Amino acid sequence: MVAAKDIDNASELDMMLTLMQEMVIQYVRQGQNETEPVVSFQDPGQLYKAMDFSLPTQGTGVEGMFVYLCTFELIKSTLKYSVNSWNPRFMDKLYAGTNPIGVISELLLAVLNSNVHVYHVSPVFTLMEIEVTKAVGQLLNMGENSGGLLCPGGSASNLLALVTARNKLFPMIKSEGYFPRPMNPAASYGKLTVFTSLHSHYSIDKSAQVMGLGTDNIVKVPVDDIGRMQVDELERLLLLSIDKGETPFFINATAGTTVLGAFDPIRKISALAKKYNCWLHVDGSWGGTVVFSDKVRAEREWFDGSELADTFTLNPHKLLGVPLQCSMLVTPHQGHLLFAKANSLRADYLFHGNPYDLGAGTIGCGRRPDAAKVFLAWKFYGQQGLGARVDRALASAEEFTRLVKQRNSFVLVKDPSPFLQICFWFVPPQLAQADKDFDLSVVTRELHRRVNQSGEFMVDHAPLVGKPDFFRIVVNAPTVNLHRDLERLLDAIEEANATVDWSTVQC
Amino acid sequence: MVAAKDIDNASELDMMLTLMQEMVIQYVRQGQNETEPVVSFQDPGQLYKAMDFSLPTQGTGVEGMFVYLCTFELIKSTLKYSVNSWNPRFMDKLYAGTNPIGVISELLLAVLNSNVHVYHVSPVFTLMEIEVTKAVGQLLNMGENSGGLLCPGGSASNLLALVTARNKLFPMIKSEGYFPRPMNPAASYGKLTVFTSLHSHYSIDKSAQVMGLGTDNIVKVPVDDIGRMQVDELERLLLLSIDKGETPFFINATAGTTVLGAFDPIRKISALAKKYNCWLHVDGSWGGTVVFSDKVRAEREWFDGSELADTFTLNPHKLLGVPLQCSMLVTPHQGHLLFAKANSLRADYLFHGNPYDLGAGTIGCGRRPDAAKVFLAWKFYGQQGLGARVDRALASAEEFTRLVKQRNSFVLVKDPSPFLQICFWFVPPQLAQADKDFDLSVVTRELHRRVNQSGEFMVDHAPLVGKPDFFRIVVNAPTVNLHRDLERLLDAIEEANATVDWSTVQC
Repeated sequence: MVAAKDIDNASELDMMLTLMQEMVIQYVRQGQNETEPVVSFQDPGQLYKAMDFSLPTQGTGVEGMFVYLCTFELIKSTLKYSVNSWNPRFMDKLYAGTNPIGVISELLLAVLNSNVHVYHVSPVFTLMEIEVTKAVGQLLNMGENSGGLLCPGGSASNLLALVTARNKLFPMIKSEGYFPRPMNPAASYGKLTVFTSLHSHYSIDKSAQVMGLGTDNIVKVPVDDIGRMQVDELERLLLLSIDKGETPFFINATAGTTVLGAFDPIRKISALAKKYNCWLHVDGSWGGTVVFSDKVRAEREWFDGSELADTFTLNPHKLLGVPLQCSMLVTPHQGHLLFAKANSLRADYLFHGNPYDLGAGTIGCGRRPDAAKVFLAWKFYGQQGLGARVDRALASAEEFTRLVKQRNSFVLVKDPSPFLQICFWFVPPQLAQADKDFDLSVVTRELHRRVNQSGEFMVDHAPLVGKPDFFRIVVNAPTVNLHRDLERLLDAIEEANATVDWSTVQC
Repeated sequence: MVAAKDIDNASELDMMLTLMQEMVIQYVRQGQNETEPVVSFQDPGQLYKAMDFSLPTQGTGVEGMFVYLCTFELIKSTLKYSVNSWNPRFMDKLYAGTNPIGVISELLLAVLNSNVHVYHVSPVFTLMEIEVTKAVGQLLNMGENSGGLLCPGGSASNLLALVTARNKLFPMIKSEGYFPRPMNPAASYGKLTVFTSLHSHYSIDKSAQVMGLGTDNIVKVPVDDIGRMQVDELERLLLLSIDKGETPFFINATAGTTVLGAFDPIRKISALAKKYNCWLHVDGSWGGTVVFSDKVRAEREWFDGSELADTFTLNPHKLLGVPLQCSMLVTPHQGHLLFAKANSLRADYLFHGNPYDLGAGTIGCGRRPDAAKVFLAWKFYGQQGLGARVDRALASAEEFTRLVKQRNSFVLVKDPSPFLQICFWFVPPQLAQADKDFDLSVVTRELHRRVNQSGEFMVDHAPLVGKPDFFRIVVNAPTVNLHRDLERLLDAIEEANATVDWSTVQC
């Protein structure tokens, strides 16, 4: 009864890994082949027909080889109908495919099945997390006392930043909530307000909503011509909020906005944060890891003042090619201990316990050891190798911007492109020449649909307040080639345009 | 210049996977070998000496084989100093090691590097998530309209449940926050209160804290003798809260408490939730997946009324052996669409968009396709295979309880053990015979330290209000053997006791 049938996991896994390796390598090779599509796209109705999504009472994995056949058929179909992110023509999102050491690091995590909530169950991964967040803090000039925690995604890092700020500034809220106000005359705060730019990521709004701050109390600061927060406007809005009896407590600067890739001026914003007693957070989910580039740190102002941030989010899973998810929140204020002090329900107990128990500072309890993935990537490529990836992407973006500019009918949204997103409209000559108004958003969406349809490319289009929708091409993968991929994309857009009879399209 | 050096990811990964496979298989085999320790434990000081945690400017992975040697030495050390969770004598936490299909599923996710926020970048994984959450909903009797979302851990699922409940019941809070109260005479609610048992998981408290509800406004309901929420006490406390002008809105029942493994009576609690207009959530992070067992559903009352829950958390990464993390929140109310409606910042827009874009309902933005891991496990083992794992664990726990009871000096905390945690004290005969008071908590901690020290076992001790600390042994891994592992543990505790001179220990 109790004794399980003899289970030989090692032999079973050995056989399965051997079978997987062949499939996996073939798949990665396909991603390197320019004649292969990024995806064989199926809408949900088609995909339900193409694959068997039913969940059986009896498994397929129980007896003999039938097991492997069935399971591996399923895995084969999964590969077949998924987006092949090894293909550099996947330029739709801010992440790209991963790389060999990325896959190996995930395999390592899978085999160990560890949990970095307490040191004694994951000693190695705990120290990797402490060291890698400290090293990133040092790149940000945050010094010896910097460090942080890994969170399941940039939104989660931003949420942890907001919660930490609120708990540090108004610790009574942890126990009493916002409710006693204004009945509690001892309360030292009015309605809490949050400041962030018009172009910042929606996770700031979502976090504030989760925290019961209310999205109405998020003040959106206007941006300048290239999408950076306007600091004079920030001060005006801070004063306006204070005049209304509110309590501004959190300013979010963005390092690399989602659509245009703008970097807010951290140093200037920091001065206002200090002046008005606000927490300064930088959401560098997209652009933060650019700090790995020596060249950028030396030549650009993007990180000027980074050491003045109270918290800083970076996602190595975007620009560094670390597998999803890998996001961190770093701080100059004693690293992960800041989060433990601010957020633990029993901080005193825990600090007489083990300061290496990282779970004390997180919102969740159990957690994957995501830090190990960026740790291994760093060991493998070195800081300079990771920085070189950033430099290469920046150089490609610059060259691609030039190509776009040279072509007739292509109009850049910003010239030069502020960062790695190249944003442009295609203005069909047929329409430009006709003496008639047309909606460029409709044009973009129609061409976008046609370009993506073949699967040769996967690119995105984006909206921006007051402008028609445009193409947003993200240059990230180190395998992207200027001519084979980027120039070809422009051809593909022109070819798509040639297939449209615009007189039949409502624009 | 832009063209990167020729990168051949396929060949590089091929070589690395071949090298990894050998190491991995050897490691899994070690976990199956009863003479191997669970861990070679090093405290942080020792571990910093044993491994190189420095992060280099130049990588080790740049030229030739040196790459692989250095990286793989690091991976070897990581394996060496980590907890080997394939070893069934790892019985410290509520999760155990994973299994071959678990490792394979993680490898698949790594290779695809997908993101399940929008359908078009992860079509297959999106449908797997929709289908597997619906199928789990059906096991919970929630019917055709059930379904849900995967979240990064049980705490995250519980947080999403609380946020969803609040947003559905008081949608104005999304935009205005809690602040206008009591100034807004139209507000339909008083101070919001949450009800959960004294033995429930701390993630309920932490979520309430994050949401600004305040931990003071979490009402802890007393439990009965085996740790279940007392329903009459729940009603008394609800009425007390209402009398104070508060608004109870959320009741959390637990299916499998952390320490004792108690299942709160869902049906009875549901009646009160209905009567007092509260959202009923079940935190089944630990015990929820027991629903895979046909035997349990037929013979036990644990899931009686499960279909009446508004939301239900289950963690396949615990009892089903799916790799960390894999947690889901299911609901009978239209599956993932409930979460999108409650939590999206632009619900109308999204619902005219694509109802298959699962990210609309999550707190975060990007997300790993964790659903695929439980989907593949289900295909491989079948619902009955996963259920058999549960049944085997329950049978082992029962037999182990019997063994503990038979031994002198061992005293069960609960007899029978309510679930898969076997909790007991060891009362040293030397102390029991002496006519002197002693602190059993100190005894437990001392023996626990000694038993874990050798690395032969990794087990936990636990506190419970009003009782001295005791051993908490978690029976989970399907490879655990009654005699080789469980009986041996009791011997090891006795042996540890024989090495202690209790007169020198402060107890």
